[in-house]
Amino acid sequence: MRNSNKLKIIPLGGMREVGKNLTLIEYRDEIIIVDCGMTFPEDEMLGIDVVIPDVTYLIKNQEKIKALVLTHGHEDHIGAIPYILKKLKMPIYGTPLTIGLLENKLKEHNLGKVELNVVRAGDKVKLGKMEVEWISVNHSIPDSCALAIKTPLGYVYHSGDFKVDFTPISGDVIDLQRIAQIGEKGVLAMIGESTNVLREGYTMSERKVGETFNRIFSQAGTNRIIIATFASNVHRIQQIINSAEKYGRRVVLSGRSMINVMETAQRLGYLKLKKGTLIDIKDMHKYNDDELVVITTGSQGEPMSALTRIAYGEHRKIAVTPNDIVILSATPIPGNETSVFKVINKLLELGVNVIYESLTEIHVSGHACQEELKLILSLIRPKYFIPAHGEIRHLLKHAEVANSLGVSKENIFIMSNGNCLEISQKDAKFVGDVPSGNILVDGLGIGDVGNIVLRDRKHLSEDGLIVVVITMSKSEGKLVSGPDIISRGFVYVRESEGLIEDVRNVVKGTLGRCDRKSITDWTSLKTSIREDLKGFLFAQTKRNPMILPIIMEI
Amino acid sequence: MRNSNKLKIIPLGGMREVGKNLTLIEYRDEIIIVDCGMTFPEDEMLGIDVVIPDVTYLIKNQEKIKALVLTHGHEDHIGAIPYILKKLKMPIYGTPLTIGLLENKLKEHNLGKVELNVVRAGDKVKLGKMEVEWISVNHSIPDSCALAIKTPLGYVYHSGDFKVDFTPISGDVIDLQRIAQIGEKGVLAMIGESTNVLREGYTMSERKVGETFNRIFSQAGTNRIIIATFASNVHRIQQIINSAEKYGRRVVLSGRSMINVMETAQRLGYLKLKKGTLIDIKDMHKYNDDELVVITTGSQGEPMSALTRIAYGEHRKIAVTPNDIVILSATPIPGNETSVFKVINKLLELGVNVIYESLTEIHVSGHACQEELKLILSLIRPKYFIPAHGEIRHLLKHAEVANSLGVSKENIFIMSNGNCLEISQKDAKFVGDVPSGNILVDGLGIGDVGNIVLRDRKHLSEDGLIVVVITMSKSEGKLVSGPDIISRGFVYVRESEGLIEDVRNVVKGTLGRCDRKSITDWTSLKTSIREDLKGFLFAQTKRNPMILPIIMEI
Repeated sequence: MRNSNKLKIIPLGGMREVGKNLTLIEYRDEIIIVDCGMTFPEDEMLGIDVVIPDVTYLIKNQEKIKALVLTHGHEDHIGAIPYILKKLKMPIYGTPLTIGLLENKLKEHNLGKVELNVVRAGDKVKLGKMEVEWISVNHSIPDSCALAIKTPLGYVYHSGDFKVDFTPISGDVIDLQRIAQIGEKGVLAMIGESTNVLREGYTMSERKVGETFNRIFSQAGTNRIIIATFASNVHRIQQIINSAEKYGRRVVLSGRSMINVMETAQRLGYLKLKKGTLIDIKDMHKYNDDELVVITTGSQGEPMSALTRIAYGEHRKIAVTPNDIVILSATPIPGNETSVFKVINKLLELGVNVIYESLTEIHVSGHACQEELKLILSLIRPKYFIPAHGEIRHLLKHAEVANSLGVSKENIFIMSNGNCLEISQKDAKFVGDVPSGNILVDGLGIGDVGNIVLRDRKHLSEDGLIVVVITMSKSEGKLVSGPDIISRGFVYVRESEGLIEDVRNVVKGTLGRCDRKSITDWTSLKTSIREDLKGFLFAQTKRNPMILPIIMEI
Repeated sequence: MRNSNKLKIIPLGGMREVGKNLTLIEYRDEIIIVDCGMTFPEDEMLGIDVVIPDVTYLIKNQEKIKALVLTHGHEDHIGAIPYILKKLKMPIYGTPLTIGLLENKLKEHNLGKVELNVVRAGDKVKLGKMEVEWISVNHSIPDSCALAIKTPLGYVYHSGDFKVDFTPISGDVIDLQRIAQIGEKGVLAMIGESTNVLREGYTMSERKVGETFNRIFSQAGTNRIIIATFASNVHRIQQIINSAEKYGRRVVLSGRSMINVMETAQRLGYLKLKKGTLIDIKDMHKYNDDELVVITTGSQGEPMSALTRIAYGEHRKIAVTPNDIVILSATPIPGNETSVFKVINKLLELGVNVIYESLTEIHVSGHACQEELKLILSLIRPKYFIPAHGEIRHLLKHAEVANSLGVSKENIFIMSNGNCLEISQKDAKFVGDVPSGNILVDGLGIGDVGNIVLRDRKHLSEDGLIVVVITMSKSEGKLVSGPDIISRGFVYVRESEGLIEDVRNVVKGTLGRCDRKSITDWTSLKTSIREDLKGFLFAQTKRNPMILPIIMEI
């Protein structure tokens, strides 16, 4: 077959969006899945817990799947795995911390019997006709890797999430030598993350934050210090521990995910700390404020997080006073600004000294800025370039950057989720789409909440509802009981008794008119009630509650 | 009376929040109201249209009110006036544009017979024992003023919203001479806006934006230009008109508020433009793209705004193509980032060249940064200082700035809405609170949506509802009809028929059990249904829909 020597790249997530990263590399009848992440719901996805990628295509091609290979352990790269494992089976490969965090996740979902394989940076794994190599990069979680996937047509380089940190906390600088070697061998296609492409220059080294911590600790005097950061940012936590040990403070952890991740990171040897540094939260009272630092979740103002509970006085173990310094060592993710500032304001109201990003340098990004992206592009020198992991504004900018470095425009592909890019020795082109999209998870339901349910939730959330119940006799078609009017989320009933009485009269009027016109089928009757009431309520209140007419038959 | 020579400052809005500015200056039996603004609802205020201040105190003291005096015409300073005028009457004073915009607003609300008085910067108006002087300042709307309120105890200086722009578009620099004179006479208390206090340095001059516009226009070639900005930012619009005239383009307006404000601004002489520059949107087709610039609303990604409709292909008159340049000449207000970026992404998907703030200088703030705030504080040298118009994090920082300039800590008051600060010749102290808070406006209802209604809306928005209806015979207490199960916003019913059938069986089980236990009062029966169903549904779905049991009696 002349056409069989072709490679397909199919993103099922992470294109024109931030989150739920999932990319397929398909060669003949073999598929390698790179990452399998979730994302958080947008504002209009009311009541939804998490969003995962549509994997219909994988379910249909189950027998082709060789493996799921992971770049690192962040939720937007591993978070959807428990959900798709309910429908798909495949071996999974990742670095020790990535697999460790995944194991916790699988345990929570009661998923056993999954083939998990631990690899290390530098390892190569042969998977059918392709071979995957993990290459160390810097990022805001240890053990992050880029992937060099050797295919019969050449290398596909997947950047993972990364930054270039010449002075990282762990001591492992991004493996620029190996990246240069791969580039030297010739890279067919590169998939490059675009998170910070709109920022010029370089991302600061993680070590910068440590300097700020040391300065704050050295000046903290008799104050207790509380630091909120991402649980998975192990290097940040290592630096807090370093400062704590340097300035004679014990470390207390608060927040479920903080405790879980720390336990895993410590067990796997990713944290260095002296015996006695870490103390249990229940022993906190034995120490003075100036002997303590609390590391907590909640840097994004998440409603149920430890820091939010502390700020609202609802934390069972930690109450803040003006003798506390709270540091938010993170930047609000777009959309979280309001919640974060609310938490900050609440803490300030309690007299706490709050240090956050607009005031000082207590956070650096984990993603490469323009100059770092240029460095990797220059080392890899891909034939085809696919900007990924970003909104369209990021992808287009990354395309512009790649073009400025000599990748020709026709060799840069701005992809959508579901697009199939087919690459042959001769060329690369789009060859149609596979199913893709958002699968909404609400409680135990995966995909059972769709547009109709969301539209109803939105309607209910804006103006509430009015239920109109009447009991009709089947034989005579006459009203036997009602109309009863029940409202929720519409008006405060006790103060609007007159309005509810008016509603009842409007419905009575409708019933009378329908009776005179001999309208007896329940559907028409319901429609009449709904329309009359809608008109009446809008004129009276300029609101449009959901109107639910219910007819009981006896 | 020894104690009668006292002044009270009572903020009813704008303290520890951004928006709904309203401050009372009360001397003996006379009250002057400064501004009367609205604010937009927070995320959790589901279905609410606008939020206004609680004016119970003013309603109780109606006879004391001498006037409402306005600093400028932004919504957060005049937007609540139509609502409070339904309960209060008083003369209103403001500069020409402020009163012009207010008139439009009163017309929309069908409010006539309001005493509106036009004043100009430099004017003094005697109101009872106090006298109000309007002092010109720079801001993002023309005709903005600070107020120097002369009271028998000394001056109260209200900064209004301001920046220091030495090269403003209108030619009127903030009246630093007069501010210095007032400071020289001695200022008892200053109320100072705090919006940009967290930013160091100076705010750029509005003229900077004009330079950027000129550069973009000069390089636009055959492209059409579309610029989104705030309708009330008349100076920004003037600069767009200047660039349009310089580079031979006609100006088209899009968006209802843009057309309204421009009409008012033009009528009052706040816009200079050549005859023929402004063309009607229906004549657009007569011109080539390179002869046009469209000025539109929607710079905040507001769902129904002109720019959003353009981006989503829903604007009846304007369809964009890759030959368009769209400029967002505004910064997203915190909380609006996600909507703004969605609009930007939509436009980019259509091939439009989008220029927004993170890429170039197409916006400057209308508020003073730290150095400007220091300048005014240094000129006014108030005895007492009240930072205002900001969240607590802004107020505390402004207090720190004032303190660093020599205002002693005990003379700086961080106030909450409703606090009464009583100032005598001897001292200043808090003397209790008056009612204050958020009054929610939903459609025609002012204040009829409270916590219970909002809690129900939130509950409904997250998991929807299940209505359970049964008809019972009053005489025998037996089930006559039902249970009928209706759900909305819970699950997609067609795919969950089994679940709904299970719900019916759970209710039947409850009814049977209640019957055996001889539970016949409807309230207990409803409670049993609700509890049994809640447990069942949570176990099955991990969701908590609102459960509405309804019993019809015959």
